Amino acid sequence: MAYRDLSERELRKRLEYLREQYEEICAEEVSLDMSRGKPGTDQLDISMGMFDVFHSSYDFKDESGFDVRNYGVMDGISEAKRLMAEIMDVSPKNVIVYGNSSLNIMYDTVARSYAEGVMGSTPWCQLEKVKWLCPVPGYDRHFAVTEHFGIEMITVPLLEDGPDMDIVEKLVSEDDAIKGIWCVPKYSNPTGICYSDEVVKRMAALKPAAEDFRIYWDNAYAVHHLYEEEQVKILDILEECRKAGNPDMVFEFASTSKVTFPGSGIAALAASKENLKPIKKQMSVQTIGHDKINQLRHVRYFKDFDGIKAHMMKHAKLMRPKFQAVLNEFDAELKDADIAKWTNPLGGYFISLDVMDGCAKKIVQMCKNAGMVLTGAGATYPYGNDPTDSNIRIAPSYATPEELLMASRILVICVKIVTIEKMLNE
Amino acid sequence: MAYRDLSERELRKRLEYLREQYEEICAEEVSLDMSRGKPGTDQLDISMGMFDVFHSSYDFKDESGFDVRNYGVMDGISEAKRLMAEIMDVSPKNVIVYGNSSLNIMYDTVARSYAEGVMGSTPWCQLEKVKWLCPVPGYDRHFAVTEHFGIEMITVPLLEDGPDMDIVEKLVSEDDAIKGIWCVPKYSNPTGICYSDEVVKRMAALKPAAEDFRIYWDNAYAVHHLYEEEQVKILDILEECRKAGNPDMVFEFASTSKVTFPGSGIAALAASKENLKPIKKQMSVQTIGHDKINQLRHVRYFKDFDGIKAHMMKHAKLMRPKFQAVLNEFDAELKDADIAKWTNPLGGYFISLDVMDGCAKKIVQMCKNAGMVLTGAGATYPYGNDPTDSNIRIAPSYATPEELLMASRILVICVKIVTIEKMLNE
Repeated sequence: MAYRDLSERELRKRLEYLREQYEEICAEEVSLDMSRGKPGTDQLDISMGMFDVFHSSYDFKDESGFDVRNYGVMDGISEAKRLMAEIMDVSPKNVIVYGNSSLNIMYDTVARSYAEGVMGSTPWCQLEKVKWLCPVPGYDRHFAVTEHFGIEMITVPLLEDGPDMDIVEKLVSEDDAIKGIWCVPKYSNPTGICYSDEVVKRMAALKPAAEDFRIYWDNAYAVHHLYEEEQVKILDILEECRKAGNPDMVFEFASTSKVTFPGSGIAALAASKENLKPIKKQMSVQTIGHDKINQLRHVRYFKDFDGIKAHMMKHAKLMRPKFQAVLNEFDAELKDADIAKWTNPLGGYFISLDVMDGCAKKIVQMCKNAGMVLTGAGATYPYGNDPTDSNIRIAPSYATPEELLMASRILVICVKIVTIEKMLNE
Repeated sequence: MAYRDLSERELRKRLEYLREQYEEICAEEVSLDMSRGKPGTDQLDISMGMFDVFHSSYDFKDESGFDVRNYGVMDGISEAKRLMAEIMDVSPKNVIVYGNSSLNIMYDTVARSYAEGVMGSTPWCQLEKVKWLCPVPGYDRHFAVTEHFGIEMITVPLLEDGPDMDIVEKLVSEDDAIKGIWCVPKYSNPTGICYSDEVVKRMAALKPAAEDFRIYWDNAYAVHHLYEEEQVKILDILEECRKAGNPDMVFEFASTSKVTFPGSGIAALAASKENLKPIKKQMSVQTIGHDKINQLRHVRYFKDFDGIKAHMMKHAKLMRPKFQAVLNEFDAELKDADIAKWTNPLGGYFISLDVMDGCAKKIVQMCKNAGMVLTGAGATYPYGNDPTDSNIRIAPSYATPEELLMASRILVICVKIVTIEKMLNE
């Protein structure tokens, strides 16, 4: 029965019972972490074969005959470019393979624009004001990068099929201080939504007032499907931008952090040839090159894109019961009460939970007091400010299904308690 | 007999003979590269055991019990900090371990100062003018970083025991636009000189006009001795700065690029606690962490600093005949002629050759025409501008001793030809 249809007496009765349950849980001294999109140990174990790829008598030549153990090949070995290009569904000639972190590439891309501009435009550090569009809820580390450079962040609602393009089109075409937009087009962090073909096409056809406006296309979950049979495919944004006459309007990012090992994977950028020119020039000052041995290790281990796809299904097999543990509990305990909404994604690393306005912070705090860490409430919004205080990000990957069952129970109890308290005080 | 004591007739006779020799060499179609400080394949082979350190059934916990395969531990695992601290001869608490490139750390350090300042000072991008001291001859990639950020570079002579400190002290104390100095304190690139204790102490005791002045102490060749018995030890600059009341005045850099694999080593920064605070804050925006598996691989392979020292003696054994091949040829062919000076370093990667003023560019070009690539003349000076056009950097590591013998012969012939031409035209 929906909570809104319960009498005050009935609500108070439930509250009393829920508080007892909460006290019992607190006494158990649990220690659970659902705060970050961190793979579980079982997921890391999938990639252990990577350590058997190389041995001391191995021949370390890449396909061009270059010894990857030595200096050189600044922008990545060809076979690694091809692999990362397939993950992003772009052409290898548009790809630079970097080190271990796509976040680092995004940071560098903003930092370079700040210090030296974008393809010859005025460096952002010389401008009065730089603004950025942030579809919300979104990824806290994206927002942290733009905040770090003093960029004013403007929120845009993230709908079921992508950002609200009416708003994006209007803002971008009217304000030349807007220099970028953060996008996670596939299995979005945290809602799990995917951009529809129409949204991708509208994004590619933007007519920005600023010549140095760029779409920051973080294809972080490009191959991170949860199901064999339901795999979302999104349009290639580079190709769509070309078709729309905006070939230089996008930077795409990806990594294998959640394919092999977080922190020990390889990351890549894809962009037009014109965009790559100043990037490679700056890169030649910044580094002699990234870890090519690790690039070759990844290629040798996966062999080709089919290898990646098969590997990701092993991840999916481990991830599904984790997502299911949370979703089952939500279905069983929150559906009828009708006091929250949540996403049931086809991929990615998160479940997004929307609770009653003004309740998220309290719920997260109550969970913490009971020994369970969630992503800080508000983290999915720029400046950590969720205006309705209603969104909670759940990262089910790190815990075991058993721990997730426990964690979901705690979360559900806290959601119910805080919601009833709110209802009774109103 | 010294060339200056030869008659014009004798010089012309030699020139004719040398030109014949040069033509013969050109006909041989050699292909040699002494341009970059790139380890030879034989040196890379020394570290092949690194690929047998890990295998699929290995336990990937660091000494604190953290699984290095996953996200976390932004500033490096403890045992890697300790190893890098020993290489730099500093305390592990002053160390951050990064990814594969100390050049990248130096770039980031300048970039951070440019965008956000140094420990709260005005960001350099907001200043009219930023200047930098560059001891010359020096490392071209250092100069490229400061040039990239539009920093005005001022040359300071590099003497036998370090930069000319009278000049450094004067400039730094008088001009608050001077924000840094590039230093390679041990087995300097390219001359191979080492900073004396007096120079280190004077450097640490500088009284800069700018509060955000920093010494960029690139300890690139800290453990890169050529001889077992003659190993230079320099003072710990962090400690000397503390003693002199300037605890925050230095950033020190090092890497294992020329210990294990260039591009696949680990790199580190050492600085005071106060300097590390804003760096770690920025780093937490820039990345989730560097490749900890590779950090652990290095520690497990070397075990401790003694392991590093023993390993470096294997490098030395391979490097000595390479240096000797060049030096023997110079001694035999250039000493009596007295037309050049060169260094005979105890470590590092380079021999620095000073030829007659106005001859370096021509010599390097002649060598190139004969199939032998040297570092571009002028590269050891800011903006590629060697005012006397006399310094040539020789990197003997990549070629074999046999190739180096051939290369040195070509170089010597070109030095003689260009020098005589210069003498005859004067």
